[in-house]
Amino acid sequence: MVRAPIPEDKFSFGLWTVGWTGTDPFGVNTRPTLDPWEYSDKLAELGAWGITFHDNDVFPFDADDATRARIVGKLKDAADKAGLVIEMVTTNTFTHPVFKDGGFTSNDRSVRRFGLRKVLKNVDLAASLGAETFVMWGGREGSEYDSSKDFHAAFSRYKEGLDTVAGYIKEKGYDLRIGLEPKPNEPRGDIFLPTIGHALGLIADLENGDIVGLNPEVGHEQMAGLNYTHGLAQALFSNKLFHIDLNGQHGPRFDQDLVFGHGDLISAFFTVDLLVNGFPGSPDAPRYTGPVHFDYKPSRTDGMAGVWESAAANMETYLQLAAKAKAFRADPAVQEALKLSGVYDLAEPTLAPGESVADFLAAEEDFDVDAAAQRDYHYVNLHQLALMHLIG
Amino acid sequence: MVRAPIPEDKFSFGLWTVGWTGTDPFGVNTRPTLDPWEYSDKLAELGAWGITFHDNDVFPFDADDATRARIVGKLKDAADKAGLVIEMVTTNTFTHPVFKDGGFTSNDRSVRRFGLRKVLKNVDLAASLGAETFVMWGGREGSEYDSSKDFHAAFSRYKEGLDTVAGYIKEKGYDLRIGLEPKPNEPRGDIFLPTIGHALGLIADLENGDIVGLNPEVGHEQMAGLNYTHGLAQALFSNKLFHIDLNGQHGPRFDQDLVFGHGDLISAFFTVDLLVNGFPGSPDAPRYTGPVHFDYKPSRTDGMAGVWESAAANMETYLQLAAKAKAFRADPAVQEALKLSGVYDLAEPTLAPGESVADFLAAEEDFDVDAAAQRDYHYVNLHQLALMHLIG
Amino acid sequence: MVRAPIPEDKFSFGLWTVGWTGTDPFGVNTRPTLDPWEYSDKLAELGAWGITFHDNDVFPFDADDATRARIVGKLKDAADKAGLVIEMVTTNTFTHPVFKDGGFTSNDRSVRRFGLRKVLKNVDLAASLGAETFVMWGGREGSEYDSSKDFHAAFSRYKEGLDTVAGYIKEKGYDLRIGLEPKPNEPRGDIFLPTIGHALGLIADLENGDIVGLNPEVGHEQMAGLNYTHGLAQALFSNKLFHIDLNGQHGPRFDQDLVFGHGDLISAFFTVDLLVNGFPGSPDAPRYTGPVHFDYKPSRTDGMAGVWESAAANMETYLQLAAKAKAFRADPAVQEALKLSGVYDLAEPTLAPGESVADFLAAEEDFDVDAAAQRDYHYVNLHQLALMHLIG
Amino acid sequence: MVRAPIPEDKFSFGLWTVGWTGTDPFGVNTRPTLDPWEYSDKLAELGAWGITFHDNDVFPFDADDATRARIVGKLKDAADKAGLVIEMVTTNTFTHPVFKDGGFTSNDRSVRRFGLRKVLKNVDLAASLGAETFVMWGGREGSEYDSSKDFHAAFSRYKEGLDTVAGYIKEKGYDLRIGLEPKPNEPRGDIFLPTIGHALGLIADLENGDIVGLNPEVGHEQMAGLNYTHGLAQALFSNKLFHIDLNGQHGPRFDQDLVFGHGDLISAFFTVDLLVNGFPGSPDAPRYTGPVHFDYKPSRTDGMAGVWESAAANMETYLQLAAKAKAFRADPAVQEALKLSGVYDLAEPTLAPGESVADFLAAEEDFDVDAAAQRDYHYVNLHQLALMHLIG
Repeated sequence: MVRAPIPEDKFSFGLWTVGWTGTDPFGVNTRPTLDPWEYSDKLAELGAWGITFHDNDVFPFDADDATRARIVGKLKDAADKAGLVIEMVTTNTFTHPVFKDGGFTSNDRSVRRFGLRKVLKNVDLAASLGAETFVMWGGREGSEYDSSKDFHAAFSRYKEGLDTVAGYIKEKGYDLRIGLEPKPNEPRGDIFLPTIGHALGLIADLENGDIVGLNPEVGHEQMAGLNYTHGLAQALFSNKLFHIDLNGQHGPRFDQDLVFGHGDLISAFFTVDLLVNGFPGSPDAPRYTGPVHFDYKPSRTDGMAGVWESAAANMETYLQLAAKAKAFRADPAVQEALKLSGVYDLAEPTLAPGESVADFLAAEEDFDVDAAAQRDYHYVNLHQLALMHLIG
Repeated sequence: MVRAPIPEDKFSFGLWTVGWTGTDPFGVNTRPTLDPWEYSDKLAELGAWGITFHDNDVFPFDADDATRARIVGKLKDAADKAGLVIEMVTTNTFTHPVFKDGGFTSNDRSVRRFGLRKVLKNVDLAASLGAETFVMWGGREGSEYDSSKDFHAAFSRYKEGLDTVAGYIKEKGYDLRIGLEPKPNEPRGDIFLPTIGHALGLIADLENGDIVGLNPEVGHEQMAGLNYTHGLAQALFSNKLFHIDLNGQHGPRFDQDLVFGHGDLISAFFTVDLLVNGFPGSPDAPRYTGPVHFDYKPSRTDGMAGVWESAAANMETYLQLAAKAKAFRADPAVQEALKLSGVYDLAEPTLAPGESVADFLAAEEDFDVDAAAQRDYHYVNLHQLALMHLIG
Repeated sequence: MVRAPIPEDKFSFGLWTVGWTGTDPFGVNTRPTLDPWEYSDKLAELGAWGITFHDNDVFPFDADDATRARIVGKLKDAADKAGLVIEMVTTNTFTHPVFKDGGFTSNDRSVRRFGLRKVLKNVDLAASLGAETFVMWGGREGSEYDSSKDFHAAFSRYKEGLDTVAGYIKEKGYDLRIGLEPKPNEPRGDIFLPTIGHALGLIADLENGDIVGLNPEVGHEQMAGLNYTHGLAQALFSNKLFHIDLNGQHGPRFDQDLVFGHGDLISAFFTVDLLVNGFPGSPDAPRYTGPVHFDYKPSRTDGMAGVWESAAANMETYLQLAAKAKAFRADPAVQEALKLSGVYDLAEPTLAPGESVADFLAAEEDFDVDAAAQRDYHYVNLHQLALMHLIG
Repeated sequence: MVRAPIPEDKFSFGLWTVGWTGTDPFGVNTRPTLDPWEYSDKLAELGAWGITFHDNDVFPFDADDATRARIVGKLKDAADKAGLVIEMVTTNTFTHPVFKDGGFTSNDRSVRRFGLRKVLKNVDLAASLGAETFVMWGGREGSEYDSSKDFHAAFSRYKEGLDTVAGYIKEKGYDLRIGLEPKPNEPRGDIFLPTIGHALGLIADLENGDIVGLNPEVGHEQMAGLNYTHGLAQALFSNKLFHIDLNGQHGPRFDQDLVFGHGDLISAFFTVDLLVNGFPGSPDAPRYTGPVHFDYKPSRTDGMAGVWESAAANMETYLQLAAKAKAFRADPAVQEALKLSGVYDLAEPTLAPGESVADFLAAEEDFDVDAAAQRDYHYVNLHQLALMHLIG
């Protein structure tokens, strides 16, 4: 029996998650739309620590400033009253048809200017609400047809947009960092920045890349058949893991947004292991300390009771995996197995301290190729130990 | 009828391509092994301009220095005589069982040192043969089990290895650049640097990253469901497209290494369009000017005659696609369609020259959201024009 | 330049294809909804021969009988006037939330009864309009969670539903056959009857399977990474290819419904080759003679002009591929290559006429294993010939 | 702590599993080859009940009859002594280059005759050893190029081959059934009978299909993104689940053959649940009672000790999942949840006993569409209950 969530767990939910009414490409909504504060109140009751939202999860696309202020104020009051942090805010540049060809990379410059304005305005909102992360998912930045875009221009415009927003944040002195959210496809045929790697690559080309990092989502990486934990590790290696989106997915197919753990469970276990325990042999490596943010969809076969059951399920699974991961690492048999497999040895540099390449090449090194080739790494056994901790 | 290949086409083949004898996970070789110079002679005859190889495509893993020198010398002589350039050399750190857990990121440090030595020795060879690119495919750098590696240490060792090699190249003054070849999986369950993006991300973290770029392979990106031409564009945007590997693949499955064009043909068309025509609206953007390198496998149902037929097929397809791409871009109807779709407009910055964010936000901009939302981009028609050029 | 479509081409479109308004999981509609007859009139003008529809493409879910009759009558009149055949009708058991857990296999029996009634009523409609095929796509028959269904019961109910509908058709004496449309996933996590094969398997278990066959869709098979032309061939082998849905897809990912040929072009070529030329060495094998039905979506970046451009593109591509396929087969060089590859030899039975297994085993047969192992099938060259016909 | 395996568990292993020496497309063997009886002795020691093999796992391809008899005899003696059942035998028609284009569907008739003879000879062997299942995996039956085969002829030859073998078994009176093993691709680009469904479809077309069923492999179905448990259920529904191959896989990619449970763990749990508990609401439905057969590969990073660790891991995981599945079904809270979700209700026919379609259509049925649409199926909660049983 897992303990109940507490604020220290830093569990956070997008309002659009529990607020998803079940519309999909082949069906209309199966649940009603509630007011934003109804979602947040209930999330607080379930043990969440924070909430996040797109602007238009809260107020309409065409809301005037007064309406916008009134609704946001009401949500903020509700959050405060419920003890919830608004830890992240993001902008919807995908629902309205004006964004059908993208926000920052639409072929239509007037759309790009409109999109940029919408984002900048939302940066002010995020800062005013005390959010620490400003997520940018460019779900409409992409193409179905290689003929339809000048891709160099597309990357130039993407860079321009990101640099403009990041520059604005710095100019304003906001305590806010940008988290890019990669996704390979859906809704566009091919989305720009399809994976964690592509986002890291573009960030390195930015002028204001110091405050731009990643918000990787489990399912998005798995839609490309990639290993999410590997991806988190590379983002951490580059000091760019700013935020995370946990959920579940069954490999390359449509974006499922299942409850965390309801997709690839072993992968979820090692993701949590990394989050709560860090790297086994690299105690000084960067760690993720941000919110544990769930970006999932309650199945449309469920009603409102099912919505709350599924929200709770995300936290329950995380806590259970965290307990299992702690026990896994604390087990002396596991420690022995990690050593036997050489896991700790990888932290030792290949060259000795101070060893130059010339020295290295000149050294007569005794190396028995055949013996090394026959080394038994016992990786399967180590993995089985993990599995038995997980389901033991 | 396509014209015959000429040296100016810069067509190049790995010796391991025509030299593949057909061994696969479920079957043994169906063709004999020839001497390296037999492959190169025949490739020259077919119209190739260059060849490339892994060290152990040419001499045995355990060859002593004399044997190595003798065989390489013979190959070099044959290449010279045939007028072939040895444009790229790469190291085999995957076939021998000593590398079963990787070369640069094996948990066994003695293996890492052995792997690093093998690579450095091969750098000397590459330089001595006049190669301009040194490809590094870390096919064994990865894991099957998230428990089996300290991933932070793995990225640290990968970085250490790459920086050491790149540093050595610079120290020696070699006119050689490193091309990293990403791949998502196979032979490892999950390979480090699974995509173009991940490689760009790690390169940005290197000390000697200035001479480290990409050698992206069509099939490897498509194994992750990614758009190869998008990937090339991002690599060019980062000035990191150093070399290319053309072949064919049918999406996420085992690595097929089909003849170029025998997988996703429309994607192949737009890849060639990018290579021969550049970006439509960005005349000053970086262009790829390196070899047109094929990394494919002749089907094991074919014999030696089929090997040469398939080698020729790669070049024939490329030349045909190049002719089609030239005609596509030159067609006034296409130019009109590109304009109608706004393809050229994407090159115009979103902000006006000199426009500050403050000015931008302060500007009262007339924007009719509904009109912009209803814009007909005519992308399908533009794509159909391309298709009719391709099969017309 | 391809000739214009003519009625003999039997090109047919779902009203829901050109009628798709662009709503997707992340965005609202980008185009208006027209009246059904507006779509059909325009399709006729473009050269289509037939139309097809789901009941609720034409009249609302909750239409009373009078409304239903009035609207259907108006559509029928328009079709007649335009010279269009209503060749297929299908039932929408997926949009309304009542079907969120399926129509025939919902866990809720009252829903199953409602779904069955809706289908049966639509059978009457289909028959009254002269349709020859009644397609059943059970897009909501499936599950996200293996816990949520008794799968044996699910197959029992699916069988019951199909047998009931097929039995009703026979009882009524309608000249109508059922075409099952497989799909692996989306909208359900896993859909029952995910591929052509699974549908063939269930049909074999039906009481009234004689009038139940297949309506395979290009993209649906390719979402499972399967070869569409292989699938058509197996359906033909079982005499079950009753109808087809042509479109385009880029492998395992969300259901893209691109224009036919805009996905895997080479596969599209061989599909058309099979449709227009039949099997190369099996002149007496079953052939498909039904409508050439397109089930695609005009990209939401396009407006209404783009809708018609894309509809025309499907037919243009088909006609161009058909012309290419005819020329391919007529080419004496291709005929030679087919022979060299042994393509015609596969039609010869392995056992000789009248040869018993006992005779076969007793025969001393001269067989040179090594020679046979070395046979060069020249498959790559044959494929390259096809490619050069396609893009030559 | 899981109990040790016992014979009643009917755990069985292919000799080729523990006997895999680690050769893959990019590397040579990392482990030695042992004699067949060394593998079987050790498997018996670990608690296995049975073994299985391909002919050429035991004796060489070109062994004469005496050699063959001698080696097989020695293996049989060893198995008897160790108390092992030889429960299944299969034929290798894929390793030798003569089979590069298939055994039953090669374009070369002399190869087809040779392949058929090899299979028939092996049927005698299987029968003589008391095997109950004769598995046929047609891994080389397929194509890379749609041009290379007459697909109708291919299905005709496949049918001919299967009918011949099944007819021979019946003629001989052997107590042996054929289990077809589907696979979508690898080693061929597209394999005939890619999924459980396609095999069911072809079986229905056979003359001697009564003794032909399925041997579905976890990873093979998952390579096509399909749900293995759904597939087992459909095979059971058709009374065709004759044998199973358990292992692990990470979705569409190369064939990984991981330890059972090391791929999609939740799916493995529900597979075991089906095997040990049957369908929840269909007590009279067919059940699988055959061997629990593992078809996996010990990772090539492991040595011989790792081989045995991994073999044991398969059984340990199965037993642990079985214990969890028993507890899951026995839990009253789960029973309540199954009822709440309507899982038992699906077993009730949609039509009432004796209800005709005419009666059904004539009935005035009270059905509140909106109420039914709003039903909360609580599927996520039920699944979470399963998950908490699994990792609780």
